[in-house]
Amino acid sequence: MISDLELRQVSHALLVERGVQLLDIAELVLNLQNKYIPNLSVAECLENVQAVLEKREVQNAIITGIELDKLAEQDMLSQPLREILTSDQGLYGIDEILGLSIVNLYGSIGFTNYGYLDKTKPGIIKRLDSKVGQSCHTFLDDIVCAIAASAASRMAHNDPSKIAIVNQ
Amino acid sequence: MISDLELRQVSHALLVERGVQLLDIAELVLNLQNKYIPNLSVAECLENVQAVLEKREVQNAIITGIELDKLAEQDMLSQPLREILTSDQGLYGIDEILGLSIVNLYGSIGFTNYGYLDKTKPGIIKRLDSKVGQSCHTFLDDIVCAIAASAASRMAHNDPSKIAIVNQ
Amino acid sequence: MISDLELRQVSHALLVERGVQLLDIAELVLNLQNKYIPNLSVAECLENVQAVLEKREVQNAIITGIELDKLAEQDMLSQPLREILTSDQGLYGIDEILGLSIVNLYGSIGFTNYGYLDKTKPGIIKRLDSKVGQSCHTFLDDIVCAIAASAASRMAHNDPSKIAIVNQ
Amino acid sequence: MISDLELRQVSHALLVERGVQLLDIAELVLNLQNKYIPNLSVAECLENVQAVLEKREVQNAIITGIELDKLAEQDMLSQPLREILTSDQGLYGIDEILGLSIVNLYGSIGFTNYGYLDKTKPGIIKRLDSKVGQSCHTFLDDIVCAIAASAASRMAHNDPSKIAIVNQ
Repeated sequence: MISDLELRQVSHALLVERGVQLLDIAELVLNLQNKYIPNLSVAECLENVQAVLEKREVQNAIITGIELDKLAEQDMLSQPLREILTSDQGLYGIDEILGLSIVNLYGSIGFTNYGYLDKTKPGIIKRLDSKVGQSCHTFLDDIVCAIAASAASRMAHNDPSKIAIVNQ
Repeated sequence: MISDLELRQVSHALLVERGVQLLDIAELVLNLQNKYIPNLSVAECLENVQAVLEKREVQNAIITGIELDKLAEQDMLSQPLREILTSDQGLYGIDEILGLSIVNLYGSIGFTNYGYLDKTKPGIIKRLDSKVGQSCHTFLDDIVCAIAASAASRMAHNDPSKIAIVNQ
Repeated sequence: MISDLELRQVSHALLVERGVQLLDIAELVLNLQNKYIPNLSVAECLENVQAVLEKREVQNAIITGIELDKLAEQDMLSQPLREILTSDQGLYGIDEILGLSIVNLYGSIGFTNYGYLDKTKPGIIKRLDSKVGQSCHTFLDDIVCAIAASAASRMAHNDPSKIAIVNQ
Repeated sequence: MISDLELRQVSHALLVERGVQLLDIAELVLNLQNKYIPNLSVAECLENVQAVLEKREVQNAIITGIELDKLAEQDMLSQPLREILTSDQGLYGIDEILGLSIVNLYGSIGFTNYGYLDKTKPGIIKRLDSKVGQSCHTFLDDIVCAIAASAASRMAHNDPSKIAIVNQ
């Protein structure tokens, strides 16, 4: 059996290897902030991002999605899957499925933020989406949106005074 | 057994009774349009909205959600459910669950639009959300966002040249 | 805002009022046990059931589902919703949606047990399903299956040596 | 863009290549039959299986899941993903997520059958699960259960007289 420690370390290392720092995700959470939570700090966002990354389900989504992204880049996937992934084909949908499986862990209140981040593509999502060179981030961008939305949900569940982050 | 015809008619009549015309939902779909689909017409959006409303699962979500909204208005729900619904409490989440069950019928590509509409609240969603007098639309606004997002997904699945509506 | 304490107390009291003791749910979990976990105790199952019931999302599903069941019994729902609920119409589906929203909180490993309990209807599920007199448990039986499946998932996540409860 | 025809042909061919005939899946559907639908034929089950396989979302789940299964067999996945897949580790969960994304397309009434098939492993599921030699069917067995459950849901939605297949 894979140890919990190994799964956690590999999943975190993969995010960094693919250009995503936890601080980038914390800034996405902060980006969801609005005038109703004037005192939200990036440190508090980061703490919630780290807690989300402790979940085994999140780690499994990360290692699976990034593996597929990397295999697509290395031309090691069969057709038509490779072309679907390298072109980030909009009708594919399995990438959003993996993202949703993360968001669901914190209940339904994160759906709104997940969709909003995926549509507006702020910060790191924009950078992942710009597809420099041969890079493929079809799964990674949805996973990162989902982690940020989940961190916001977690914050609201733990501190209902911050509820505006999920429904404003 | 309830006839299919009765369920369809009641669910459509409830939307109208609660202030939602199908054209309002079609305009939400059009609102998701962008420069990549310059020639999208409201008639095509309306056609897709009508198709979504033919699904039994969508009709069941409508009659259940609106019933709860109305019972909350009429002060016929137990506490704390009544207060949760009349205040549209952000941590409730069952309203988003019903919306997601609609979106899921057209696959995962609709999550993004569902979340985006729920967050930005354009058109009819804004009007539902303004809570004039004693009205309660806790479930209705999520259901309407979900129908619009599903109509956009349906359009993209049926005509992949319009795929930009779901992933741009 | 509804206090966390009030929501917890009301949701637990509603289960008992409707004839479901936490021990009944713990026995469903034990029922999922098999030869691969010979030493599973009802006390450990009960502890996991109680932890699931601490989640706000679970409490919200309970108070919403049971409210609808009770309103159906009291003839206070509009048609055709009342008839759909009192006949536990198989195509309705909103009851399963609420159950799934509970199971999702513990990841996807609980789907199998959720479906299995709902199909085989052991113990308390059978008793709820027998519809003595005017009672309506359309939502309650799915919610109870979901709580039991979630408790099994929680147990497996916390103690991977008990993983057989979710995949055997 | 990948043509619809190519995606359909590849996804069907992959099922056959991995040892799953459509008739095997039709027999799973028939297996869900019970005394309440005495006249259900395998031909009708097969027709519904074929309709489910026409959906792009189902085809995408098939090509993604089977690709991962094959890469695991060929030792072309990074660790720990490879070990998780080859051992069909019960806490992984991404396989169930892909299955659920298929079932959701036909509404919530299929959850029960999905879980039941996954737990009881009749027919082809048992054969896939027996892991002869180096074969890895971690994703395939969940996908096949999901296709069968979806076919049963489709049948019930189209012919409510056959509703017993989803709720008995």
